[in-house]
Amino acid sequence: MTVTREKHDRMANVIRALAMDAVEAANSGHPGLPMGTADVATVLFTRFLKFDPTDPTWPNRDRFVLSAGHGSMLIYSVLHLLGSDDLTIDELKRFRQLNSKTPGHPENFMTPGVETTTGPLGQGLGNAVGMALAERILADRFPGIIDHHTYVLASDGDLMEGISQEAIGIAGHLKLNKLIVLWDDNGISIDGPLSLSDSVDQIMRFQSAGWNALRVDGHDPEAIAAAIEEAKRSDKPTMIACKTVIGFGSPAKAGKSAAHGSPLGAAEIAATRQALGWEFEPFDIPSDVRDAWRIAGLQSKKARTAWDERFAALDAETRAEFNRRFARELPARFTENMVKLKEKVGADAKPVATRKSGETVLETVAELLPEIVSGSADLTGSNNTRTKTMKPITSDDFSGNFVHWGIREHAMAAAMNGMALHGGILPVSGTFLVFSDYCRPSIRLAALMGLRVVHVMTHDSIGVGEDGPTHQPVEHLAALRAIPNVLVFRPADTVETAECWDVAARQSRPSVFALTRQNLPLVRTEGEERNLSARGAYELRSADGEARVSLFASGSEVELALEAQKELERRGIPTRVVSVPCMDLFFEQSAEYRAEVIGRAQIKIGVEAAIRMGWDSIIGHDGDFVGMTGFGASGPYKEVYELFGITNSAIVTKAMARLGGNA
Amino acid sequence: MTVTREKHDRMANVIRALAMDAVEAANSGHPGLPMGTADVATVLFTRFLKFDPTDPTWPNRDRFVLSAGHGSMLIYSVLHLLGSDDLTIDELKRFRQLNSKTPGHPENFMTPGVETTTGPLGQGLGNAVGMALAERILADRFPGIIDHHTYVLASDGDLMEGISQEAIGIAGHLKLNKLIVLWDDNGISIDGPLSLSDSVDQIMRFQSAGWNALRVDGHDPEAIAAAIEEAKRSDKPTMIACKTVIGFGSPAKAGKSAAHGSPLGAAEIAATRQALGWEFEPFDIPSDVRDAWRIAGLQSKKARTAWDERFAALDAETRAEFNRRFARELPARFTENMVKLKEKVGADAKPVATRKSGETVLETVAELLPEIVSGSADLTGSNNTRTKTMKPITSDDFSGNFVHWGIREHAMAAAMNGMALHGGILPVSGTFLVFSDYCRPSIRLAALMGLRVVHVMTHDSIGVGEDGPTHQPVEHLAALRAIPNVLVFRPADTVETAECWDVAARQSRPSVFALTRQNLPLVRTEGEERNLSARGAYELRSADGEARVSLFASGSEVELALEAQKELERRGIPTRVVSVPCMDLFFEQSAEYRAEVIGRAQIKIGVEAAIRMGWDSIIGHDGDFVGMTGFGASGPYKEVYELFGITNSAIVTKAMARLGGNA
Repeated sequence: MTVTREKHDRMANVIRALAMDAVEAANSGHPGLPMGTADVATVLFTRFLKFDPTDPTWPNRDRFVLSAGHGSMLIYSVLHLLGSDDLTIDELKRFRQLNSKTPGHPENFMTPGVETTTGPLGQGLGNAVGMALAERILADRFPGIIDHHTYVLASDGDLMEGISQEAIGIAGHLKLNKLIVLWDDNGISIDGPLSLSDSVDQIMRFQSAGWNALRVDGHDPEAIAAAIEEAKRSDKPTMIACKTVIGFGSPAKAGKSAAHGSPLGAAEIAATRQALGWEFEPFDIPSDVRDAWRIAGLQSKKARTAWDERFAALDAETRAEFNRRFARELPARFTENMVKLKEKVGADAKPVATRKSGETVLETVAELLPEIVSGSADLTGSNNTRTKTMKPITSDDFSGNFVHWGIREHAMAAAMNGMALHGGILPVSGTFLVFSDYCRPSIRLAALMGLRVVHVMTHDSIGVGEDGPTHQPVEHLAALRAIPNVLVFRPADTVETAECWDVAARQSRPSVFALTRQNLPLVRTEGEERNLSARGAYELRSADGEARVSLFASGSEVELALEAQKELERRGIPTRVVSVPCMDLFFEQSAEYRAEVIGRAQIKIGVEAAIRMGWDSIIGHDGDFVGMTGFGASGPYKEVYELFGITNSAIVTKAMARLGGNA
Repeated sequence: MTVTREKHDRMANVIRALAMDAVEAANSGHPGLPMGTADVATVLFTRFLKFDPTDPTWPNRDRFVLSAGHGSMLIYSVLHLLGSDDLTIDELKRFRQLNSKTPGHPENFMTPGVETTTGPLGQGLGNAVGMALAERILADRFPGIIDHHTYVLASDGDLMEGISQEAIGIAGHLKLNKLIVLWDDNGISIDGPLSLSDSVDQIMRFQSAGWNALRVDGHDPEAIAAAIEEAKRSDKPTMIACKTVIGFGSPAKAGKSAAHGSPLGAAEIAATRQALGWEFEPFDIPSDVRDAWRIAGLQSKKARTAWDERFAALDAETRAEFNRRFARELPARFTENMVKLKEKVGADAKPVATRKSGETVLETVAELLPEIVSGSADLTGSNNTRTKTMKPITSDDFSGNFVHWGIREHAMAAAMNGMALHGGILPVSGTFLVFSDYCRPSIRLAALMGLRVVHVMTHDSIGVGEDGPTHQPVEHLAALRAIPNVLVFRPADTVETAECWDVAARQSRPSVFALTRQNLPLVRTEGEERNLSARGAYELRSADGEARVSLFASGSEVELALEAQKELERRGIPTRVVSVPCMDLFFEQSAEYRAEVIGRAQIKIGVEAAIRMGWDSIIGHDGDFVGMTGFGASGPYKEVYELFGITNSAIVTKAMARLGGNA
């Protein structure tokens, strides 16, 4: 679409007007970014972006990520202008109000057309790397069907966050050349001029990471367009530094941090309208401008129509598989095969670490679900997330299904979110549980967005042993369980691991698998078709008679509970053992089920090589707990367990003490 | 010290031998890095590093940070060779055993001479930036007394972690030219060749961040020495890429990831001994090599002797102030002035946000404690951590006491750890509570090391309002309380804020202040000399008669509890209110005190605009809780509180329901 400069200016100014008006109406928000990047957005959305305004879920749309999520009015304005049915002018007027489609930061679950939830800086850039990677992988699987660009609008803050380095590092390494980052180079941060805190040469920095890097005047539409054209021709990802003026148009606040995060105020808005030659009332959009935007939207839709024809020409099986993947449906044979797997692994009684169980199960799961893309943050051999049949993805071959993420846990987690958001992929990670802290902001967003991502986190306790307290998680199970909408699985053996994977694959939320480094005996050897782990906790071994003691344990400590049970039973004390592979799921069960599993034994003891936080809901605040109260220590793992008193005899001693020693 | 190449090789080979022998003895550990960087370390420690082998706490020593903490045998070997009394040969033989001074990763609290606890990658580099910044600040305060270099040995993994970008960004910006990073450029990661996951040009990257960057053969001692000399002359921080061979000397494993993290094995160790011409038994150190190392240590000590003379020449007051700061003692008038402050702020009943309370208190604290260096991750005006009298630190003026960290929460937290480790400084941060997730790995290490750092984290709940769920912490209080040895303070008003600061300043552990965005009324207006917050929780308002209801609340929800109390009392139900400004401290009190504060009221209700996790220990698992169960929402904050039912009437309703409605 060619437009005159005058028309372009009006098309951009409508964004500026909507942004300042909506922020003013809400008396809260960020006008500076939408006003500064209105020209960039106008060029991108009306001349380049390929999408279907009537179907924001079209799988082959170009993705646009507003990594600088505080500038949310930019995307709301654009979606409205392009003809979104959801983003009506009334919704724009309800900016930042409860239950509006225009929340303070973009929330993809509230607003159709918003690709991802952003605001915490750097995350959107990480998501976009995942989307661009997903595109490359799926373009290999479904040639001609998946073939699109991923655009990011990023702020100084996005580029200062550490995650940005991880993200651009892996993107440059994998030569994700359909990823184009538009950097809003406005030289302003909240505290004032960017020079207060930063002097990085971003062009050089991106080049050092294997990127193509360009510089343009962010208020010159033809220059912006030429740069995007050049970026599209590059064999590397491209960063375009768009020199802009924050709050462009505001006589008193343009180019100042005052434009960033507060309403401009009525007088300044009036002055800005005058300066921009924008004679219209708040939220009033002249028909020529509206038409120009709508035409762009309709032109873009042509790509969809052509795609529909290509898709229809595929064979039925490919179409079905494509649709299955994007609908996140499991193949019919999934459940049956998972049961068979359970039978098979239950029959092999050799002690293994649950990280090895994870590999065994993942091998079957990945065979059943070709949408799985696994990976590890440079701990492949330790995490056991690369199964025998997996093949690494490289910059010149995207037919693989394993990503060597490098030592980039945070970008791995953010990119996995992007892959899940893109659709067609079930991403699986690998790192140590203690490093869940490095991924945490991204796991939180996965939970908020309800994304099916699976984090495999091994070395899940003091069982790490010699590597010591820096590598021994003690609070991480609690801290991950604390995040709403995350499932933390800590299976006790291969059978439970299979059951937990069966659950995780069905979720619209993230799962974290906490798996051991050390070997464990199988605790579930009997065939059992039902998925006992699916309700989070279940009675693993009943008491001989009416239970006086209930032991509750997860993962590696189930073994200890079973040994303690034997000893207590030997002493004539009826004891039952409850396995708790997923506390989060257990708390979602009916009160009846919970009461039944918790049982009525006089004595309740929780056992987990971690802090107690969270366990009171099972054992009661007056229950006993065998676990950790502080950091671990470096030493052979069995000695470390002894040191902290996490042993079967400690369980027995606690039970006996409660029984008055005279049971 | 000049040595022949032959002597140098022997001095380096002893490190290689000790590393492979200790790892072999432990049957666990990382020989690759010490063997690869033995030449670099030998040059650095015997020709450059300024320290006192008999007093590893000398304040003006050069700092050495092994950011690649897995190579711990490098530093243990070197400390032993330099004559440390702690690192005996027997301790080296006890590598990775319980309670040894040679844990798997370097732990500064276990091993004198180890500057910081490393292992989680990137953290050491962040610490070192803080040390180098502390040096510049203290060099300004105590000229001639503090004047040293900070050296870092960093691995590929350190440089791939996102935190490294934040750290080098701020270091380059502040021109910390006495910071010298030696990068162990060995081209190997755990998964295999680095080229599996990385292609960043690190020289260009560091240059883009304003660093001087050099490249040397990491096995050429004269080239290494020349590069360090050049680095010391630079007006920028310097990164020296030292091209090394991991596992240098091992015929079968050198240059391969197999050398990284496993014992070489007896046969390969024998072959390596042969290849290196090292004819000595395990842990046997020939006397010429021992002497050469000892001489280097003794020569280095001369700097200490000269410093002692300079220090003795200072006036008594300066000496006393210097010693006070490094001993982390508070000035005599501190307690008295904090009580006065409480009286003063208690008399001003105007409602304020506790972030504003934080500023008011910090103003007094910073005046009393000139060792405070405050800062913010680009949220200065929101965090209120820059008081009126504070002055920013810039690259050409280190006389200030406020750091504009930029949007770099993680490096801020890691650098604060480094500043605290350096000594002489009490670092204070500023960011939003939700971004504690970005800092978490560093906060955990502060807790493990027992460092006095104070994190001011504002916008502490759904009270954030319009910014929505991405910016509203709900699980962060629980997740921070989960970390052992962290104090999470959530004061209800300015008086409690003063009390909490009085406690935080006395700790050898990190404190996190969770402060509100929204205004709150004062809840403590009566003069009270005692620090009621010091025990974590206390009865704020007693019941009229024997309490039937106990309400427990923190921060902004104390107001709601007080209003609910009024209503319940009006209905004739004796109700008391307990303020819980620091749950962690409360759990450390005697059983008697806890029982007294929890009380015996039939009904216990916790109130906090956050998840319940952790509260059961106060209210019991059968207690009631008014708080959050999931993520928040974007909207005006009072409406958000209503939406999630966190109101005084919700408290009253819960109490009445328990009373059967007929109380």
